[in-house]
Amino acid sequence: MTETAPRPTLEAVAARAGVSRATASRVVNGGDGVREPLVERVRQAVEELGYVPNQAARSLVTRRHDAVAVVIAEPETRVFADPFFALQLRGISKELTAHDNQLVLLLTEGRDDHARVARYLAGGHVDGALVFSLHLDDPLPGLIRGAGIPTVFGGRPDWHGGPEAAVYVDSDNRGGARAAVRHLAGLGRTRIAHITGPLDQTSAADRLQGFRDVRGDADPHLVAESDFTPGGGERAMRELLARRPDLDAVFAANDLAASGALRVLREQGRRVPEDVAVVGFDDMLPVAEGTDPPLTTVRQDIEEMGRIMARLLLRRLDPNATDDPPAGLVLPTTLVRRASA
Amino acid sequence: MTETAPRPTLEAVAARAGVSRATASRVVNGGDGVREPLVERVRQAVEELGYVPNQAARSLVTRRHDAVAVVIAEPETRVFADPFFALQLRGISKELTAHDNQLVLLLTEGRDDHARVARYLAGGHVDGALVFSLHLDDPLPGLIRGAGIPTVFGGRPDWHGGPEAAVYVDSDNRGGARAAVRHLAGLGRTRIAHITGPLDQTSAADRLQGFRDVRGDADPHLVAESDFTPGGGERAMRELLARRPDLDAVFAANDLAASGALRVLREQGRRVPEDVAVVGFDDMLPVAEGTDPPLTTVRQDIEEMGRIMARLLLRRLDPNATDDPPAGLVLPTTLVRRASA
Repeated sequence: MTETAPRPTLEAVAARAGVSRATASRVVNGGDGVREPLVERVRQAVEELGYVPNQAARSLVTRRHDAVAVVIAEPETRVFADPFFALQLRGISKELTAHDNQLVLLLTEGRDDHARVARYLAGGHVDGALVFSLHLDDPLPGLIRGAGIPTVFGGRPDWHGGPEAAVYVDSDNRGGARAAVRHLAGLGRTRIAHITGPLDQTSAADRLQGFRDVRGDADPHLVAESDFTPGGGERAMRELLARRPDLDAVFAANDLAASGALRVLREQGRRVPEDVAVVGFDDMLPVAEGTDPPLTTVRQDIEEMGRIMARLLLRRLDPNATDDPPAGLVLPTTLVRRASA
Repeated sequence: MTETAPRPTLEAVAARAGVSRATASRVVNGGDGVREPLVERVRQAVEELGYVPNQAARSLVTRRHDAVAVVIAEPETRVFADPFFALQLRGISKELTAHDNQLVLLLTEGRDDHARVARYLAGGHVDGALVFSLHLDDPLPGLIRGAGIPTVFGGRPDWHGGPEAAVYVDSDNRGGARAAVRHLAGLGRTRIAHITGPLDQTSAADRLQGFRDVRGDADPHLVAESDFTPGGGERAMRELLARRPDLDAVFAANDLAASGALRVLREQGRRVPEDVAVVGFDDMLPVAEGTDPPLTTVRQDIEEMGRIMARLLLRRLDPNATDDPPAGLVLPTTLVRRASA
C-alpha cells in the first residue's frame, strides 16, 4: 500500500497565515467577525497548502453530506448510448449544482451489482437518491427501500406488492399517446397502427394504454411490440405492413422507433404522410428534426424532468421545509406538428 | 422533512429467520460454519425485509468503502458528448465491478464545483480516485492532493510546481505522432502539415512534440492550432491551405479533427490520398472507419487505459500488495493503415 501525503491540517493553515486556530476555523467554516486582511491571509494559506476542510467531521454536526446519488438501473454502456439519460442528468446536475450539492452517479454493469449500490446508499455517503428503474421486475427499488434514505424515482414505478407510496416524477405518457392518436384520427385516418416500447416499462405500457383509450376497438394486428430502438422500429413496421397492408397511420412509442419505421415505409414505396402518417414520442433532438420527413411527435421535457426530480428531493431533505412535498408529479406533454403527420 | 421507513435491523432478520442474532450476523457477513438450511432461511429473511448490511459500521472495522471515485474535470455535457470518456469509463467500470468496487462518478458543471468535489473525496466516502484533468491550469489536481487519498490520473499531468510524483496512465502520444509523420514521409511527402489539439492539454502538446521530433525544420506555417473537434479541424485545414497551398500531407492530432480536414479537402477539390495524404489519431470507431476515404490513424486502446487505471489504483489500495506499483504507465500505440494515407 503506497503512502499518500498527509493532509494539511487547520493548524498548519493557521500557522502559515499567522493567526489563531480559532480565527482560521472561523474563516474556513464561513463565520463572520474576522477582519478582511486576516481573511485574505487565511484564504491564501488554504490555497497554498491545498487545505480541504474535514467533511466527515462537519457531517457529524450537520448530518448532511451535501451529496445526492443518481442510480440508473441500466448497464453503463446504455447510460452513455442513450441521449435520454444525458438530458435527464443535465437537468439534475444543474439543479444540484445550484444548491451546492454533489452529484454522485453510481454506475453498474448489471443486476448483480445492485446489492452493492444499495450498500453504498445505506453507508452514509449521500443524503438521498434519484433512481431510474425502468423494468417491472427490477429488484433495485426494493433494495433502496431497505437502504432507508429519501428517494425520488424517475418514471412511475410499478410496485409488485401493491400501493406503497413512491415519490416520482413522470411525463404524462398516457395523455400524450391519446393526443398523438387523436391527431391521426383527426386527419381522417381510420387504420392506425401502434409500435409499442418494451412493455415491462411503465412508460411503454402507459403509451399503449393511451392508444387503447382512443382505439379500444382496434384490430390487435395493428399493434406490434417493440423496444424503443431504430432497428426494433424497422422490424415492427415490416411486421405491421405484412399483417395489415392497408394501414394508413402509425403511432410509434418513441422517436427512435419512428425513425426506423420511416425508413421501412420509404423502402416499400409508401409516401409519408400521404399514404401513411407517422407520429413519434419524445421530441428528442436531433432525432425528430433529422428524419425524412421531419417527425410530428409528442414532446416531453426530459431535462426539466431531471431538474424537478432534484428539486423534489432537496425539498424532502430540507429540515426547514414546512409543507409536505407531493408524492408524484406528472408533467404535461405537447404535440409538436411537423411534416410526417 | 419527510420521514422515511426505518431500516430493517439485523435483529429483525434473525427474528424472521428464527435464528440467533449471531447466526444471522455470520451469514450476512460471509462467515462460515452455519448449516445450509439456516443460511437459506436467513437469506430469505434478508430478501423479504429488504435488509442492507450497515456499511458504515463495517467500514469502521475494515476502513474500506469498496468504492472508487471517478472525477472528470470537464462539464457534464462534454463528458456525455465525447465517446472518449464513455470508452474509458467502460474499462474502469468493468475492472471495478470485477473486484466488487462501486464506481462513483462525480459530475461537475464547471471549475467552481471543484472545491466541492475535493470535499467529497476528503470526506471518507471513497477509497481512492481516478482523475481526468485535461487542462494545464486546472486547480483540481492540487485540490485532490489536499484531500489525501490515493489517486491515479488519466493522461500525464503537467504540474506547474515541478517534478512531484503523480501516478498516471497515458498513451504514447509522442511516439504515436512520430510514427504518423514518419509514415507520411515514407510515402514521399515533403510538405507535411500538422493540425494540433488544444495545447493546454499534455496529449496535444506531446503529439506536437512528436511531429517536431521528425520535422523539426518544418515551416511554422505548416502548423495550425486547433481543438480536437470536427469544426476546429475544418477551420485549421482552410487556414493551412491558404498559407501553404502546396502542402501534400496532413497529420491531425485526433480523428474528429481529421474528419473535418477531409471535408474541406474534398470541398476544395483535393484528392485524398493522391494530392494530400491524411493521418489521424485515436482510431475511435466509427469515426475513423466512417470518413471518406477511411482514415489511416494512430490507434490507442482507450478502454484498456481505463481498465489499467483502475487496476493500478486497486493495487495501491491493497494492504497485502508487497511490490511498489509503477508511478506512471505509458501504453504503446499502433499505426492503422486505411485509404487516406
